[in-house]
Amino acid sequence: MKAAGVVVEYNPFHNGHLHHLEESKKMTEADVMIAVMSGNFLQRGEPALVSKWARTKMALKAGVDIVIELPYAFAAQQADQFAFGAISLLDAMNCSSYCFGSESGNPEAFERTLQYVSSSEKELNHNIKSFMKQGMSYPSALSHAYTELGLTEADYIDLTKPNNILGFHYMKAEVRIGSNMKAYTIPRKNADYHDEDFTSATIASATSIRKAIFSPAFKESVITQYIPPSSARELASYKEEFGRFHQWEDYWPLLQYKLLSMPVGYLREIYEVEEGIEYRLKECAIGSTSFKGFMERVKTKRYTWTRIQRMCIHILTNAAKKEMKEKSEAPEYIRLLGMSSNGRRYLNEVKKDLKLPIISKLSSADKDMIHLDVNASNIYAMGLQEPFRGKLMKLEFASPPKIV
Amino acid sequence: MKAAGVVVEYNPFHNGHLHHLEESKKMTEADVMIAVMSGNFLQRGEPALVSKWARTKMALKAGVDIVIELPYAFAAQQADQFAFGAISLLDAMNCSSYCFGSESGNPEAFERTLQYVSSSEKELNHNIKSFMKQGMSYPSALSHAYTELGLTEADYIDLTKPNNILGFHYMKAEVRIGSNMKAYTIPRKNADYHDEDFTSATIASATSIRKAIFSPAFKESVITQYIPPSSARELASYKEEFGRFHQWEDYWPLLQYKLLSMPVGYLREIYEVEEGIEYRLKECAIGSTSFKGFMERVKTKRYTWTRIQRMCIHILTNAAKKEMKEKSEAPEYIRLLGMSSNGRRYLNEVKKDLKLPIISKLSSADKDMIHLDVNASNIYAMGLQEPFRGKLMKLEFASPPKIV
Repeated sequence: MKAAGVVVEYNPFHNGHLHHLEESKKMTEADVMIAVMSGNFLQRGEPALVSKWARTKMALKAGVDIVIELPYAFAAQQADQFAFGAISLLDAMNCSSYCFGSESGNPEAFERTLQYVSSSEKELNHNIKSFMKQGMSYPSALSHAYTELGLTEADYIDLTKPNNILGFHYMKAEVRIGSNMKAYTIPRKNADYHDEDFTSATIASATSIRKAIFSPAFKESVITQYIPPSSARELASYKEEFGRFHQWEDYWPLLQYKLLSMPVGYLREIYEVEEGIEYRLKECAIGSTSFKGFMERVKTKRYTWTRIQRMCIHILTNAAKKEMKEKSEAPEYIRLLGMSSNGRRYLNEVKKDLKLPIISKLSSADKDMIHLDVNASNIYAMGLQEPFRGKLMKLEFASPPKIV
Repeated sequence: MKAAGVVVEYNPFHNGHLHHLEESKKMTEADVMIAVMSGNFLQRGEPALVSKWARTKMALKAGVDIVIELPYAFAAQQADQFAFGAISLLDAMNCSSYCFGSESGNPEAFERTLQYVSSSEKELNHNIKSFMKQGMSYPSALSHAYTELGLTEADYIDLTKPNNILGFHYMKAEVRIGSNMKAYTIPRKNADYHDEDFTSATIASATSIRKAIFSPAFKESVITQYIPPSSARELASYKEEFGRFHQWEDYWPLLQYKLLSMPVGYLREIYEVEEGIEYRLKECAIGSTSFKGFMERVKTKRYTWTRIQRMCIHILTNAAKKEMKEKSEAPEYIRLLGMSSNGRRYLNEVKKDLKLPIISKLSSADKDMIHLDVNASNIYAMGLQEPFRGKLMKLEFASPPKIV
C-alpha cells in the first residue's frame, strides 16, 4: 500500500482541510492518508480548541486513515523545528509522498527557492541578523532578507506567507533527513490563514471559525456551512462532555500564578525565555487581569505575539531548555492517536519496517521519553473545571488509539 | 507607656479573642496592647479566611492598639519557630509583658515544665526520636516522650494540648532570646481549639465559626452571637468587596498545577518537603479532584494533616528551604499593619529605641528582605477571581497601615 502524509493541526477540522485532504489523496494517488497532528498545544503557542483525541476523531471521520501525534518538542516550535519533526515522522511512517497547502501552490517555485536559499545561506543569515539588530522581529527580518537576495514572486515563493514558510521548511527538512518522499503542494482555497472573517460560502479559516465559536453571540448555524457535519457533531459533543472549549484565557490564572511564584532564575531555564524577558514577564504578571491584557503589556517590536505566546506555553508546561533541546534532536517514537480499518491494514503491512517504535498505549511507553507529551496533556486538562479536568487527564492514559 | 503583647491569628476575631484581649490588658496593666498576627497564611498551613488587612481592622476595632505581621518565615511553621518569631517581635517592640491563652492557665506549671524539660532535653529528644522511629507522628511522639519523663498534669502542663504547646514554646523562646518580658497566661474559655460545634452562648472556637461560614446553609445570624458586631461587619464587607472568603479549595487548582508541572527535583527544594514525599505528592495530584480528596490520599500515619498542609502552603508559595532557613534565623523587620491613636503615641515614644526597623510602606522596604511576605500576599490573592484578585494584590503595595 502506498501512503501519503499531511501535516495538520485541525483546530478545528473544516471544509478547507477536507478539500486539502481529498486533493492530496488524488494528487499523490495514495491508498492511505497519514496525518501528523500537533497534540494539545499548537504551533502558534495556543491550546487547541478541543483535545487531540477529539481532533483525531474529526480527522478519521473525514477520511484520514492514520493520525499520529507531533510531539510537544516539535509542535510548539518555530517553523523549522515544527517542519523537521513532522517530516521526520512521515518519513518514519514510510510515506512515499506528502502534500501541503501553500499560498504559492507551485512546487517548482518551492524547489527553486530552496536551491537558491541553500546556496546563499550564509548571506541570508547575515542579512537576517543585521535586520534584527535594527530592531526587526524575526519574520520581518526574514522577509527583508529574502527581498535583499532578489527573490521575486514570479520565480520564487513569497516567504512572508505563513503556509509558504511552512512548506519551504518541510522541503528543507526533507533534504536534511535525506528522505525520498516526494513533495506536493496545493494552492490554499480562499481563506488566508489569519483571516478573521468568513470570506466564502463553504471555506473559512480556522481562525475565523474559532473566533465565531468564542463570540458571545455564537450560534451553531454560523459555522455549520464551513465544517463537515461530523466535525460539528464532534465539537458539540466535546462541549457537552467537557463543559467548554479550550482557550488561553482559561490558563491565564495558572500562567499568572507561575510567573508570580517562580524566581527569575528558574524562568530563565525555560525554553525560549531569553535576553532577560523573564523580568518583564514577572512585572507584567502583576496587575494584568487577563491573558490578552498581559500579552498587550509584554509585547514589544522585537518579540512577535506568536513568539511570546509560545514562550508562555513553555512556561505553562514548564518545558525546560535542556529537555526541549534533547527531545527536539529527532523524534524517538510514533504516538498513534487513531486509525481507520484501512489505516490498520497499512500498519500491519509496514509495522516491522518502521524506523521508530510505535506507542499505542501509554502504559507500555518509556515515561522519560514521552514525558513532555504526557505533561502537556495534564496541563492542558487544567484549563477545564472539575469533574471535566480529571476526566480529560485520565483519557491520556486510558485512551487506546481511536478506531473509526 | 507600658506595652503588653499577644500572639494571634484572628481567623476571624471572635468573642473568645475579645475576652483574652480584655483580660490580658487587665492582668498586665498595660497602656498599650500589641498583637503580632500571622499574615495571610496561618500556622496550621491554611489561607486565612480574610486578608491580613481585614483582620487588622477587626483587631483594632476590638481594642488592639498596634498590629504587626508575623512574617511568613515564622507564621507557617511548627510551634517552636512560630513562637520564636512572635516573641522576638514582641520583645523588639519593647513590650514589658505578653499574655497567652492556654488550656492550663497556670503560669507556675509552665515554669516548672520548662525547667524540667530544659534539664532533661537530651533524654526528651532521644525519646521523641525513638517513638518516631516506631512510626508515630511528631506530636504523638512528643506527648509519649513527656509521659515517659513522668510529667503529670498536677504539677506540669499537659503538652498534648495545642495552646499549652504554644505557650510552652513562647516561654522557651523568651529564654532563648534573653528577653525580660514577663509571661502571663489566661485559661481559655469554653471552646477547645479544634471544637467544630458551638458549645457556649457567646464563645465558640474559630474553627467552628469558619465551619459555619462555609456551610451551604450558612446564615449570618448563626455567628453574630459569637463575634463582636465590628468583626461581623468586617466579614460582611470583605465578602462584598472581594467576592468570597478564602479557603484551601480555591487554591487547589494552583497547587495541583504546581505539583503536576514541577519536576520532583524542584519540589525537593521546597521547605518541609522531605524523605521523598515529593513523589507521593505528585502521584496523588493526578486524579484528585479537590484539596480535601488530595489530602486524604496523601496523609499517612507518619505525617499529620497539619504538617502536610504546611508543606502544601510552602509548595503553593514556592518557599524554598534555603530562603526559609535564612529568613527564620531571626526577624529582621517589624511590618506595621495598623494602629490606634493610642498605638501611634506609643510608637512615637519608643520609635528610636526599637531593635528592628519598622516597615510601614512597602515601597520603601528592602525587596529581598520582605520577599517571602510580598510573595505570600500575591499568591493569597490568586485564590480570588478577577477583578477581586488584582484589587487585593494592589492592597499589599498600596495600603498604609490601617488607622482606627
